[in-house]
Amino acid sequence: MDFPARQKNIQQRLAVCRLDALLVSHLPNLRYLCGFTGSAGSLLLTGAGSTFFTDVRYETQAHSEVKGAKVTIARKALLSAVGEWIASRHKRSKKWVLGIEAEHLTVAERKRLAELLPAGVRLRNAPALVEQARMVKDDEEIIRIRHAAQLGATLFDRALKVLHPGVKEVEVAAEMEYAARLAGAAEMSFPTIVASGARSALPHGRASQQPIPAGSFVVCDFGVILGGYCSDQTRTVWVGDASSKEGNEARFAYEGVKDAQQAAIAAVRAEVSAGEVDAAARKVLRKAGLGRYFTHSTGHGVGLEIHEAPRVAAGQKEVLKPGMVITIEPGVYFPGKWGVRIEDIVVVRDGGCEILTPTSKDFLAVRSS
Amino acid sequence: MDFPARQKNIQQRLAVCRLDALLVSHLPNLRYLCGFTGSAGSLLLTGAGSTFFTDVRYETQAHSEVKGAKVTIARKALLSAVGEWIASRHKRSKKWVLGIEAEHLTVAERKRLAELLPAGVRLRNAPALVEQARMVKDDEEIIRIRHAAQLGATLFDRALKVLHPGVKEVEVAAEMEYAARLAGAAEMSFPTIVASGARSALPHGRASQQPIPAGSFVVCDFGVILGGYCSDQTRTVWVGDASSKEGNEARFAYEGVKDAQQAAIAAVRAEVSAGEVDAAARKVLRKAGLGRYFTHSTGHGVGLEIHEAPRVAAGQKEVLKPGMVITIEPGVYFPGKWGVRIEDIVVVRDGGCEILTPTSKDFLAVRSS
Repeated sequence: MDFPARQKNIQQRLAVCRLDALLVSHLPNLRYLCGFTGSAGSLLLTGAGSTFFTDVRYETQAHSEVKGAKVTIARKALLSAVGEWIASRHKRSKKWVLGIEAEHLTVAERKRLAELLPAGVRLRNAPALVEQARMVKDDEEIIRIRHAAQLGATLFDRALKVLHPGVKEVEVAAEMEYAARLAGAAEMSFPTIVASGARSALPHGRASQQPIPAGSFVVCDFGVILGGYCSDQTRTVWVGDASSKEGNEARFAYEGVKDAQQAAIAAVRAEVSAGEVDAAARKVLRKAGLGRYFTHSTGHGVGLEIHEAPRVAAGQKEVLKPGMVITIEPGVYFPGKWGVRIEDIVVVRDGGCEILTPTSKDFLAVRSS
Repeated sequence: MDFPARQKNIQQRLAVCRLDALLVSHLPNLRYLCGFTGSAGSLLLTGAGSTFFTDVRYETQAHSEVKGAKVTIARKALLSAVGEWIASRHKRSKKWVLGIEAEHLTVAERKRLAELLPAGVRLRNAPALVEQARMVKDDEEIIRIRHAAQLGATLFDRALKVLHPGVKEVEVAAEMEYAARLAGAAEMSFPTIVASGARSALPHGRASQQPIPAGSFVVCDFGVILGGYCSDQTRTVWVGDASSKEGNEARFAYEGVKDAQQAAIAAVRAEVSAGEVDAAARKVLRKAGLGRYFTHSTGHGVGLEIHEAPRVAAGQKEVLKPGMVITIEPGVYFPGKWGVRIEDIVVVRDGGCEILTPTSKDFLAVRSS
């Protein structure tokens, strides 16, 4: 990763935003800009260079990880160190505007920082410069996300080995997470969803102690963090007889979601807006009479964070660019009954997109073992 | 959990803080006050009652989980719904002060909220009322933390079955996490630390792909979330010959940390300050000539969050009360060589404390298998 170039890119935008400096404290932004992977740090970017602040717990780690910035170890609270560093270098007479990450800095942190700054220094809410830069992934980032997606896909194969009626949802999740760890994942990118029976109608149904019942769907939504980058994938499996009346109804909903997902993927290419991709999925479900059961947005960006820009939702004007990585995950939910969701990760390309999730999306029914 | 009583407790403090209402958005505070376990919500507490806001993803879940508050589903952004709700009920002429959680609300969220509020409504940074209430655990909470600590302890036994020279750190972590999941843990309370060789000198050395070398310590610091509550425990194991020159030196450091940990535990009781507990550990290490290698604080509160109030650190004036649950975890670190840390969870009682971590702290050496 070319950390100095990423910092330079932000530094070059400071003047246009009428900022003399930017204080970055959001951890994924720090990792993106200078490689730091710990849990406490701040990066001060000025036209003249970068200074990274962390506390004594991360002294060794910061010196080995941080690239393109001078490392300063705070002997007290991190923001105090930043404030004092600025105060010691600032000429009293000079006006100086320090940009802050308004979406991440808390009200209390802003107040503490402001109290430490010398006269002449003013805080301003900066635009989301780093998040905007992070939207378009470089080749090395795409390779990492591809590896994460490939590892993620192997977990679903593992899940299918244990997913049967009577097995607890968490037993399926535990198998997947164990395999992920041994294969080198730092952790799961979010709490694993294995939602069966009526729980499959909960879009965020974390794996529970519930035994998987027959005659319903199981939604498996999961991802790993590998090399710092997230994967995100959903597959939904029918448990029971696929040729029964219930099975036929399930299949109808499943095929509707699958068609919607494929329509959205077909709509992804550079220069299209995120809202148009969302609309493509919604249109298919509406035509199938399932539109009102699709209660969330179609997708989101993925990278160092599991949810990042752009949002792929109704009316979103953000124009897709080559190198953006987004999820496409329509679903339909019948409260008290069951739900279906299918999700892939795709990379936006010039004339279309590349699907990173290698798993089949054919309707799959699991019978009693 | 008596959620209505918890809400009432906060409501009764509003007037003293010169607040007409408090907007709670920090997720652990929401779980504490009304039982909601999802990832997006806000609770508005006024003298007249409580209203809980969430988005459509959590409609079913909120109606089944939330106690003591009316549930409102936001059709747009959550804070917009809160702002509109207040605007629709507020009499223009009346002055009304809404407290916000300054340590959690971001600068941007505060700005968006302020823009939606009608004239007469003013925002004020509220004291950390909910965090203060959460410091003292009730009997049901202590039972949950005890269960979490007991499950956590079984993971260390599991770790010892696989921890040998040549085994990768992540293989040990994977075993522990797999066992935790099957036993009902929702997730680990933080990324599992299995730090061997020179990595044991990193206080936050997450399990890596590094094979465990002989002739060094392995620090295992781990916890589970069970029933919503966290456990936190550290044990350090010597890998290699305990009777060698290196082994003797290791043992000296280990016994120093163990004595310091026991001295800190002996200092814990109601009416003592957190700073006094920290000082007790520090004094023992200083006498052993190890004081300068103890580079972090002695402990922290544990409950719904892995790190919560009170801090157990040098100079902390917070007075311990019966029912507080804290960690005691001194350690010494020799950069490039190795480190040692020992950590238990204890409940503050009137004349002393109760240790919740059942694992032995005797020096333990693991030889090649």
